[in-house]
Amino acid sequence: MQSLKDVISGAMSAPKYLTGDKAGIDAFIDKFDVFLFDCDGVLWSGEHLFPRVPETIAMLRQRNKQLIFVTNNSTKSRADYKKKFDAMGIEAYENEVFGSSYSAAIYIARIMKLPAPRNKVFVLGESGVEQELHSEHVRFCGGTDPTLRRDMQPADFQNIASQGSLLDPDVGIVLTGLDYHPSYLKYSLAQAYLRQGARFLATNTDSSLPSAGTLFPGAGATSAPLVKASGQEPLALGKPSQAMMDAIEGKFQFDRTKACMIGDRLNTDIQFGVEGGLGGTLCVLTGVSRKEEFLAQGAAVVPSAYVDALGDLLG
Amino acid sequence: MQSLKDVISGAMSAPKYLTGDKAGIDAFIDKFDVFLFDCDGVLWSGEHLFPRVPETIAMLRQRNKQLIFVTNNSTKSRADYKKKFDAMGIEAYENEVFGSSYSAAIYIARIMKLPAPRNKVFVLGESGVEQELHSEHVRFCGGTDPTLRRDMQPADFQNIASQGSLLDPDVGIVLTGLDYHPSYLKYSLAQAYLRQGARFLATNTDSSLPSAGTLFPGAGATSAPLVKASGQEPLALGKPSQAMMDAIEGKFQFDRTKACMIGDRLNTDIQFGVEGGLGGTLCVLTGVSRKEEFLAQGAAVVPSAYVDALGDLLG
Repeated sequence: MQSLKDVISGAMSAPKYLTGDKAGIDAFIDKFDVFLFDCDGVLWSGEHLFPRVPETIAMLRQRNKQLIFVTNNSTKSRADYKKKFDAMGIEAYENEVFGSSYSAAIYIARIMKLPAPRNKVFVLGESGVEQELHSEHVRFCGGTDPTLRRDMQPADFQNIASQGSLLDPDVGIVLTGLDYHPSYLKYSLAQAYLRQGARFLATNTDSSLPSAGTLFPGAGATSAPLVKASGQEPLALGKPSQAMMDAIEGKFQFDRTKACMIGDRLNTDIQFGVEGGLGGTLCVLTGVSRKEEFLAQGAAVVPSAYVDALGDLLG
Repeated sequence: MQSLKDVISGAMSAPKYLTGDKAGIDAFIDKFDVFLFDCDGVLWSGEHLFPRVPETIAMLRQRNKQLIFVTNNSTKSRADYKKKFDAMGIEAYENEVFGSSYSAAIYIARIMKLPAPRNKVFVLGESGVEQELHSEHVRFCGGTDPTLRRDMQPADFQNIASQGSLLDPDVGIVLTGLDYHPSYLKYSLAQAYLRQGARFLATNTDSSLPSAGTLFPGAGATSAPLVKASGQEPLALGKPSQAMMDAIEGKFQFDRTKACMIGDRLNTDIQFGVEGGLGGTLCVLTGVSRKEEFLAQGAAVVPSAYVDALGDLLG
């Protein structure tokens, strides 16, 4: 088995630029049986589908490749993602999607397995997290509960300080995803739960969310206030956490050396593939990372190959 | 002039415990002409006044001490603070109060002096920040604007990405205080301003806010999502920033060696006094820091003296 050092050294050779190189593209695709895709920044940016993505996915299916869509976006469940693929005109199936919310739900339900009754999850996030927790029969509160989106009142400070009715005694885990509805009340509750010893998990801690061709605050911005207030760092269960890679391998059963991770971020997608010992990584330049970052001398994370856009794989 | 090293070494001798030591208290008080007070955690915790605080303040006034109330709480203006002192029954005057919002307003108006028109401030904070900016004739937007507390819509992503109507072209500074009304829209706007080159300031970056006898998220939790999303750290203008000490000295004109900082936090109040070369620092144990932290071998910040509670100075 390769050591992590070997794996990283191996990947550190100069990445191959494949755009326009038809023979290079064919040889690259032939090396792999499985392609793991990041979604935001690779297939689309928010609601904007990148050119020739449906055709590229169709081409890979025609060549009998197994496709797995690995996303850190916690706001959507696998079922939500299936709808998005349909709306975008991309052939994809719910059981091909592996999201950070699903990864977190599996970790909580099958690995942590906290004893009842103190095994409820306080969620700072959207319905994608809730749906995946529900699918794994994990109890939760917070999340999209509209009563927690209100202003903090003086009585709330007293209530929380005296461990009053606002705090659910069954909460043993605080789980943060990307929350489009932050509130001071929710953060106050989360801080109180952590002070009482709740475990701190995050679907992922991406600093930013690519959308509409630019960057917006990511799930890491949702956990950041709590990190600052509590002095604790969450265990992140999305890319580049290898807990997610292990869960994916356990579900899909594939040979890592015949798998390739395709993504737009060096410090999540590409690092995820490199540290996971995959046979290859492909960086697309339609998202967060710029080629200057991995072409620079001494770059920390370097993909095996790169293209300007995913559609370039059509040649 | 003492070097910083001398100052810190000097302060590193074992702190004197003054509670119950009447002669020690008298000698300590006699050493100083000026007392700088932190407020939250020293005089009160949220709406809870600590015992014998009004009497202690009165005693110091009777002994002709100059009193300055130095607070990192950005949600209140000096005028708001005066009202709080009155409600608590503590004799204090508006011109004795020096808050982090006022410190930030002075820094922006008198030191940065950005050229018009790109000198408007986008505020993530409450009315205390707005009032102090207004008092220094600094233009601002954001803050308590209720239209920014709404949910983020898909069109908002497009608008911000295309530098549309949601973004004010005059903004050249993003200033964060403690914001009880965070919203994803506000953070998205702030991130866009920083990407366009706006300067990043914070009234302070306290991790927590003492209230009702426990800890809630502080102003550092307001700036944290933006730090994560932008990769930038703000210039903080509250304690322990020496920009604040310089501004206080400029306003009140005193001999630092005859001044003592009283506070409950080692890494803000006490550090502020030590690094500022004040003659002494007094830690009270009614707030954030525990005596074990500064009595430990190799403690990073050590006060000259400590009491269990401010009222202990009455002997």
